[in-house]
Amino acid sequence: MPERSVQVVEVSPRDGLQAESVVLDTEAKLTLIGKALDAGVRRMEVVSFVNPKRVPQMADAEAVLAGIPGGPGRTDVTYIGLVLNRRGFERAAEAGVREINVVTITSDTFAERNQGTTSDGTVEAFAEIAKLALDAGVRPTVTISAAFGCPYEGEVPLARVVEMTRRLVAAGAAEVALADTIGVAVPSDVTARVEAVRPVLAEGDAVALRAHFHNTRNTGIANAYAAVEAGVDALDASLGGIGGCPFAPNATGNIPTEDLVFMLDRMGIHTGLDLARLTDAVPWIEEQLGKRVPGLLSKAGPFPKAPAA
Amino acid sequence: MPERSVQVVEVSPRDGLQAESVVLDTEAKLTLIGKALDAGVRRMEVVSFVNPKRVPQMADAEAVLAGIPGGPGRTDVTYIGLVLNRRGFERAAEAGVREINVVTITSDTFAERNQGTTSDGTVEAFAEIAKLALDAGVRPTVTISAAFGCPYEGEVPLARVVEMTRRLVAAGAAEVALADTIGVAVPSDVTARVEAVRPVLAEGDAVALRAHFHNTRNTGIANAYAAVEAGVDALDASLGGIGGCPFAPNATGNIPTEDLVFMLDRMGIHTGLDLARLTDAVPWIEEQLGKRVPGLLSKAGPFPKAPAA
Repeated sequence: MPERSVQVVEVSPRDGLQAESVVLDTEAKLTLIGKALDAGVRRMEVVSFVNPKRVPQMADAEAVLAGIPGGPGRTDVTYIGLVLNRRGFERAAEAGVREINVVTITSDTFAERNQGTTSDGTVEAFAEIAKLALDAGVRPTVTISAAFGCPYEGEVPLARVVEMTRRLVAAGAAEVALADTIGVAVPSDVTARVEAVRPVLAEGDAVALRAHFHNTRNTGIANAYAAVEAGVDALDASLGGIGGCPFAPNATGNIPTEDLVFMLDRMGIHTGLDLARLTDAVPWIEEQLGKRVPGLLSKAGPFPKAPAA
Repeated sequence: MPERSVQVVEVSPRDGLQAESVVLDTEAKLTLIGKALDAGVRRMEVVSFVNPKRVPQMADAEAVLAGIPGGPGRTDVTYIGLVLNRRGFERAAEAGVREINVVTITSDTFAERNQGTTSDGTVEAFAEIAKLALDAGVRPTVTISAAFGCPYEGEVPLARVVEMTRRLVAAGAAEVALADTIGVAVPSDVTARVEAVRPVLAEGDAVALRAHFHNTRNTGIANAYAAVEAGVDALDASLGGIGGCPFAPNATGNIPTEDLVFMLDRMGIHTGLDLARLTDAVPWIEEQLGKRVPGLLSKAGPFPKAPAA
């Protein structure tokens, strides 16, 4: 049997840092990106092109890309920029980004609060951006946020996720990510959603599937396992599990990259990542943010070794 | 299809508190036990009968059982006492315990450090205790500790776990628990071990299987999911995930009961436990221990409700 591989997409520079109260300067962000590269990361969400007044943490997107190792067009590493509208796409293209990710949202209430539009409006925004991207040779990927539950509307019907997937595929998505934005999913939800969207993805031209989990209710790693079992080959994660504080109400950290890789390594699943280097980056992140992060492997250490004979 | 049920065995009064530096007095332990009962817990590890000089946290075992709601012989709730040797069993029987759990260990080094004997010695101790228990009408259950990895010897061969299971079943075990004592297991390990021991358990007279996970490396809930998928119907957990500190090296907390029940509830698996009452107990535990506990549900809250129409 050929070795199974899973691609771990590092999202700490964007989804991670965006939710932190401490704002890292451009140089620190580039150091973080460098540490991820050193650990073997080959696909990374590094910036977002959104209104700097709304998201000051991401105001230096152009500066980050200008200084990014190998440049934004590097072919052996995929740097992803998050985009929500035409203006954002134009900035991303100008900065030389080769892959964008657009956020769509399953519920009207959440879409209104996050992006000032409806759920359908987020799908239409992706369609507009995807067309521009495809014309410009930029790979358009899309995240379905709150795919497992909405903070305002509660349950999200599976049918809504399937319908959005169909429209996003038709609009030219190269990859669709199912995101548990608020950390409410359980493994059976993951299995059901992956099974439901797979035939829809097959209607497109080799549309990839990615999953994005938060560990808000301690189910993030279990959901990642369920996704891998269901055949998902790309998972988002952030070093240290940054993106939220475990001691704040509604903690929303991403699943920690190093904890995920510990599990995948021990399951014999190839990621191309170096667990020791990932773990070594965590104390530096904690120093930058001035707090302990949720990731556990950096505290507990790797699988114990037998003493030398 | 009939509804699936999983029995969640509350271990906070014993495995949880034993690892905490703050020692709760008898009255506080009884309050904790009462809160678990109020939340629907019907099987609970409440005390251990070990040397009080080595484990001062458990020195009041007899006093706890003397004050326990409904008495130790209560038929609608199973109170479990941990026992390591003949002397411990005699104390347990004297105190009226109806179910004991004996700890065996897969590796000689760990067995020597924990119990001053070999791995085989722990199996022989169980055999001696089980005979006494069966003669006295006490149900003998047994835990295979470090079933997924040893802190001193590293990898633990699956064959060793199977061999120990065979001998424990032959010695009269009513239930065998596979324990990831140091939190190194991953889901594929769980699946492999459950599949390997199941035919061995079938050699006995309806020997039950239980699993015990620690979340030391963030895989505890994923392992619980894998165990449930593999058909395990009883899981240990502790309120708040107590039994270790997430900020200390080698953190060793049990999986948090309320986080486990959130997952099982959302998967449609019946536990008989009330998630809100479990979660409500956590701030009290934090107050008693003077620290935040690892459980996340008490910080994040339940699955969001839609607003009333």
